[in-house]
Amino acid sequence: MVGGAWCRLSLALALVSAAFDAIAADRPRLRDAGIGIGILPTGPLNAITDVRGVEIGHRTLVEGRSIRTGVTAVLPHRGNLFQDKVPAGFVVANGFGKFAGSTQIVELGEIESPILLTNTLSVPEAAAAAIEWTLARPGNETVRSVNAVVGETNDGELNDIRARRVTKEDALAAIAAADDGPVAEGAVGAGTGTIAFGWKGGIGTSSRRLPARLGGYTVGVLVQSNYGGVLSVDGVAAGKLLGRYFLKDELQSRSGDGSVVIVIATDAPLSDRNLTRLARRAFLGIARTGSPITNGSGDYALAFSTAESVRRTPARRAAASPVEDLPNDRVSPLFEAAVEATEEAVLNSMFKAVPMEGHQGRVEALPLDDIVASHRRSRSAPAR
Amino acid sequence: MVGGAWCRLSLALALVSAAFDAIAADRPRLRDAGIGIGILPTGPLNAITDVRGVEIGHRTLVEGRSIRTGVTAVLPHRGNLFQDKVPAGFVVANGFGKFAGSTQIVELGEIESPILLTNTLSVPEAAAAAIEWTLARPGNETVRSVNAVVGETNDGELNDIRARRVTKEDALAAIAAADDGPVAEGAVGAGTGTIAFGWKGGIGTSSRRLPARLGGYTVGVLVQSNYGGVLSVDGVAAGKLLGRYFLKDELQSRSGDGSVVIVIATDAPLSDRNLTRLARRAFLGIARTGSPITNGSGDYALAFSTAESVRRTPARRAAASPVEDLPNDRVSPLFEAAVEATEEAVLNSMFKAVPMEGHQGRVEALPLDDIVASHRRSRSAPAR
Amino acid sequence: MVGGAWCRLSLALALVSAAFDAIAADRPRLRDAGIGIGILPTGPLNAITDVRGVEIGHRTLVEGRSIRTGVTAVLPHRGNLFQDKVPAGFVVANGFGKFAGSTQIVELGEIESPILLTNTLSVPEAAAAAIEWTLARPGNETVRSVNAVVGETNDGELNDIRARRVTKEDALAAIAAADDGPVAEGAVGAGTGTIAFGWKGGIGTSSRRLPARLGGYTVGVLVQSNYGGVLSVDGVAAGKLLGRYFLKDELQSRSGDGSVVIVIATDAPLSDRNLTRLARRAFLGIARTGSPITNGSGDYALAFSTAESVRRTPARRAAASPVEDLPNDRVSPLFEAAVEATEEAVLNSMFKAVPMEGHQGRVEALPLDDIVASHRRSRSAPAR
Amino acid sequence: MVGGAWCRLSLALALVSAAFDAIAADRPRLRDAGIGIGILPTGPLNAITDVRGVEIGHRTLVEGRSIRTGVTAVLPHRGNLFQDKVPAGFVVANGFGKFAGSTQIVELGEIESPILLTNTLSVPEAAAAAIEWTLARPGNETVRSVNAVVGETNDGELNDIRARRVTKEDALAAIAAADDGPVAEGAVGAGTGTIAFGWKGGIGTSSRRLPARLGGYTVGVLVQSNYGGVLSVDGVAAGKLLGRYFLKDELQSRSGDGSVVIVIATDAPLSDRNLTRLARRAFLGIARTGSPITNGSGDYALAFSTAESVRRTPARRAAASPVEDLPNDRVSPLFEAAVEATEEAVLNSMFKAVPMEGHQGRVEALPLDDIVASHRRSRSAPAR
Repeated sequence: MVGGAWCRLSLALALVSAAFDAIAADRPRLRDAGIGIGILPTGPLNAITDVRGVEIGHRTLVEGRSIRTGVTAVLPHRGNLFQDKVPAGFVVANGFGKFAGSTQIVELGEIESPILLTNTLSVPEAAAAAIEWTLARPGNETVRSVNAVVGETNDGELNDIRARRVTKEDALAAIAAADDGPVAEGAVGAGTGTIAFGWKGGIGTSSRRLPARLGGYTVGVLVQSNYGGVLSVDGVAAGKLLGRYFLKDELQSRSGDGSVVIVIATDAPLSDRNLTRLARRAFLGIARTGSPITNGSGDYALAFSTAESVRRTPARRAAASPVEDLPNDRVSPLFEAAVEATEEAVLNSMFKAVPMEGHQGRVEALPLDDIVASHRRSRSAPAR
Repeated sequence: MVGGAWCRLSLALALVSAAFDAIAADRPRLRDAGIGIGILPTGPLNAITDVRGVEIGHRTLVEGRSIRTGVTAVLPHRGNLFQDKVPAGFVVANGFGKFAGSTQIVELGEIESPILLTNTLSVPEAAAAAIEWTLARPGNETVRSVNAVVGETNDGELNDIRARRVTKEDALAAIAAADDGPVAEGAVGAGTGTIAFGWKGGIGTSSRRLPARLGGYTVGVLVQSNYGGVLSVDGVAAGKLLGRYFLKDELQSRSGDGSVVIVIATDAPLSDRNLTRLARRAFLGIARTGSPITNGSGDYALAFSTAESVRRTPARRAAASPVEDLPNDRVSPLFEAAVEATEEAVLNSMFKAVPMEGHQGRVEALPLDDIVASHRRSRSAPAR
Repeated sequence: MVGGAWCRLSLALALVSAAFDAIAADRPRLRDAGIGIGILPTGPLNAITDVRGVEIGHRTLVEGRSIRTGVTAVLPHRGNLFQDKVPAGFVVANGFGKFAGSTQIVELGEIESPILLTNTLSVPEAAAAAIEWTLARPGNETVRSVNAVVGETNDGELNDIRARRVTKEDALAAIAAADDGPVAEGAVGAGTGTIAFGWKGGIGTSSRRLPARLGGYTVGVLVQSNYGGVLSVDGVAAGKLLGRYFLKDELQSRSGDGSVVIVIATDAPLSDRNLTRLARRAFLGIARTGSPITNGSGDYALAFSTAESVRRTPARRAAASPVEDLPNDRVSPLFEAAVEATEEAVLNSMFKAVPMEGHQGRVEALPLDDIVASHRRSRSAPAR
Repeated sequence: MVGGAWCRLSLALALVSAAFDAIAADRPRLRDAGIGIGILPTGPLNAITDVRGVEIGHRTLVEGRSIRTGVTAVLPHRGNLFQDKVPAGFVVANGFGKFAGSTQIVELGEIESPILLTNTLSVPEAAAAAIEWTLARPGNETVRSVNAVVGETNDGELNDIRARRVTKEDALAAIAAADDGPVAEGAVGAGTGTIAFGWKGGIGTSSRRLPARLGGYTVGVLVQSNYGGVLSVDGVAAGKLLGRYFLKDELQSRSGDGSVVIVIATDAPLSDRNLTRLARRAFLGIARTGSPITNGSGDYALAFSTAESVRRTPARRAAASPVEDLPNDRVSPLFEAAVEATEEAVLNSMFKAVPMEGHQGRVEALPLDDIVASHRRSRSAPAR
């Protein structure tokens, strides 16, 4: 399915990407800088891949002066996603975006394909990839309908988005690269060209693991950050501290508008309704980073459960059968987990992002020193 | 809980009501007139009470020249409704109405109280009754939150609705009167003063039972009809035949505006999402009776499942546990059942309704002879 | 933008298409067969193009034994659709489909691109076309975000849908072919391979014009019919008459499942909220044709206003300014118009559709004689 | 309309209330304590009444050991609210509540009555009051339908909520008490018995005024706070600082569950769709105070515009006519205003709230010293 020429290109890009990775490696994640969000513990990787079975793949496109974009793939599990569908919930906080596949997720409460993230004008190519990849899986020979799920944000400042550079093959490469383990963050994949709060944004991830008495479930979040407002970092008013924030003089547009797509995975056996409620909580995390969710935002959250006991296998789709259900009264700790992990995922996307020069200029990485120092002072203060 | 004075009044009203019943008894239900809707068989009573456990109670208020109103109660089961909640779905087709309790049904996917129907300005009294009745059930001594579910339509032409005659006690009487078995239809309970298509409307009911190969489930529907359009009776263009229809000359308002509230019960083990989808189908039945759902309509449908295997008992609300689920792929026959039963329930409400003189004049019963004759000719036609 | 090779192919296809057209010309529209729906008069063409400015274009693909598909384009006006956006409303009746662009329509209450219809697995190619066409319009040189609006139904029985034959160029050709005037119906464009009620479906259209006292507005509808149920033709129980209907023995799937996409245009100055309400009424028309809207349906309606007084021009997007608004209290006649025109558009799609042999067999055209004769008898009956 | 006996009672309660007021007067509002939220300036009163025409009235019920409840009324303008309706938007963040009137607000995009807030089990009495008050207004003699709008939160810990103490007359008294000018905050009206983050909550208000270059509009917010989480006060982690927060040991329920109702007024000429979007932003402010919006929350926001140019007067409801509209592209600063004012309104509700002993124990007021000191240190820190 994957051609030869673009494989060589892929290699070349991988080398470029590796250079960026070296810089990114120098920048800490939020917790490495001594800042932690919330009251719940993280999973071992503090990543969406702490939810067992979830895999992430990136395809990063940095070409010439003006291509700064890519694709990120999220696979809910390693099996046949179409045959063994996972329950899912979907929420729009502000719909100025082109998220593909939403109505079927809402109607049927499930997803049946990889979740792809890319740039605004490349949704068709990513959707085509999700369709063709699904049609080509063994066991799907008679499938005639595929609900491709594709989110996007607009990287048109660093990336020549009108060139529509992302191809179907790029999206397939992101799927092929999917793996569990640590997740590359910052200016990678679908986050290669995105901007957050006027600084370089990108891909970020985080997780929470509930104590055993609350169920012991894991919630993992991955975000593509490309929005703004008045940045707040665990209570430090970073936007004001650094003098760059929404509605401040001429900075209004770069520091305000934009979008965020949020993917939430959990191993809790949630119904699609409770997954929808979980997805809704993601925007509380977004709020805490300082966003007012401006008019121009395409802000979407998608949540799915990886629990085998709720998976919609062919047997469970054929007849009435028992499905595990975590009741309404037990979901609040998961909500807290989703809020915290979303906030931290966004901050990770900015902490790890490297500066980027591109189509219409250069975007700096978030300067961390003042923020970290300010945070340290506020936390070490007497009587706290 | 129920006082003494109004009991005597209740007796007096019962006598009046009995007189109306005698007339109603002379009017046939739709099938008794030789007309049947759709392709699926009915349950034994062709009523919502064909769904085992469901009970219906009416409180009919016909007083003096201007009070023509009442309350109808639907009980999903005989047990403690608050402790053993039933999953439910709710749909608004046009929200010009005052349905109480909707947001909690949608959020939690369940109901926890009797369902009451009454007139537009009496929703508060019915809601108060639902709350107090629930607080007073044994086992509910520490309950501090009750989601009262109340639907309504506007009977302000036959009833002096501004008088707000319905009391909390009237609503409690409707609950107390709830029983299984055949359901009184037409100008009774919450349908006492309602108007449909310019003729007397009211309460109507119908049911469908799926063949065993489709699951053998029952779907029952009860409606409070108070809307209009261009009446169609199983394909007979009754509105045009009788010369009374929406947008015809001066008849626009009486024959057009208004509302309908639809309650759907089933013993199929449906999730709240699929109950919501089932509720949505009710309006396809409404459409077939000839309604365009005008601006002034408050058109709501509520569906619940009585299956024990999906009931939200204290045990199932306390921990993750298996719940039966009829999968998406098996629900279409239930959808057909809901459409057919809703259409037939509306027609039953009009076939059984007696003429009523009230607050602002007299409303005739639907003349059946021409409709039945026309239907017979069309169905007995050669080559059909 | 449009290449050369496919132009020659296009010519070849046009010849094939012409042959089909000749057959279709022999089949009457519903009114030509003496059957009219509802109480309101049609516009002069009884087509969506009765709404001034609206243009329709088809691209029909009939190739070899297994390609039976195409694209249909709806242009709200001839100007720059992106700069002069039209207010719009969008409704999902059952979301088992892949409609693109919905969340932005709902959030902003507007559309900014052509509306394209095609098959389920070709949405990406149509979306790519809508994006590139928009980017290439004069005046859009700096546009970096385009909300492509694409509807689809699944023609996988007559069409080898897995081949994903529709190209971006095909979609562009549909846009390029857009014209006002009469609209080709039946097995054309996006309706080339669709099936309705077990018979050949396709594209259909109809319109209504309100009397001057009700505003004199026009409502036009275009449908892509690909669904089933128990066909009813203006009260004639055609499905039962012809022995082919949903849940009848082995015919369940072919006669039941499927989808419909509905586009509604009006020159009434409606807000996006009231356009959403108008769109919701389309499904009342669908109900009257006999659909229960099965689980497998992707049933979507999109409504827009062409009134200049509500158009979102650059000036009106820049500052608070007056916009004309037809108030809630005046919309009911438009609702009736939408219901009637939708029902008639579906029936036109079937009346005009020719038989089609394709990928997995042959689908007959709806036999009209019995239906028309039955309808004539029922209408000419004495005392009616 | 208002009886005599309860007037004397009212006087008695007023004296009790005055005693509480004296204590409340000693507690500062947030800004009086040197803490301000966000980047936008407040209006002159920093209250919802900064939006010209809006009036607030409280009815506070503190009786014996166990009645701690009340009613708060919000009047959008002094005229006939039913005849001169205001456009409105409504949003549910979590629907575990009994908000009355929501479906009609959403369908028609307007409100036509006072907005009342009270306790969970007293919604019927407040709704009855809104109906009767409206029916009794001069000019409403023929009104037969009133959409009462009532929000609530559950004060069942401090208040014997099962006693259902609030009467229709209490709600009428709140309406009668409505006035512009400064708004009493804390343990008053519908906030008399509420709890926030484990401390005493109540009624709070705040406002923002946009700079002239952004339109000069005012946004005012009033909240009834009764929820929890991990309290954050402008970045100070107050919940952790004070050792009382959601999921901390046994404090889970008191510090977590609960509800908030938010009323937003603006003089910006917004459509109902953009008012809905504005309402949605309120929950971003709630998020910043530390709420994860738990399962048990009934979290609702209602926004309306007081602009004469969008008011739905009888003339504008009778025919198509021009209505002012602030376009999508201009609303983002209003969104920021709503977020900030909501956050500050909640904090004001807690800063002003006095301790309360009631039905099931005593709830302390939020201790301010540590929070204020910690905030001062963090803000006076070097390099910030």
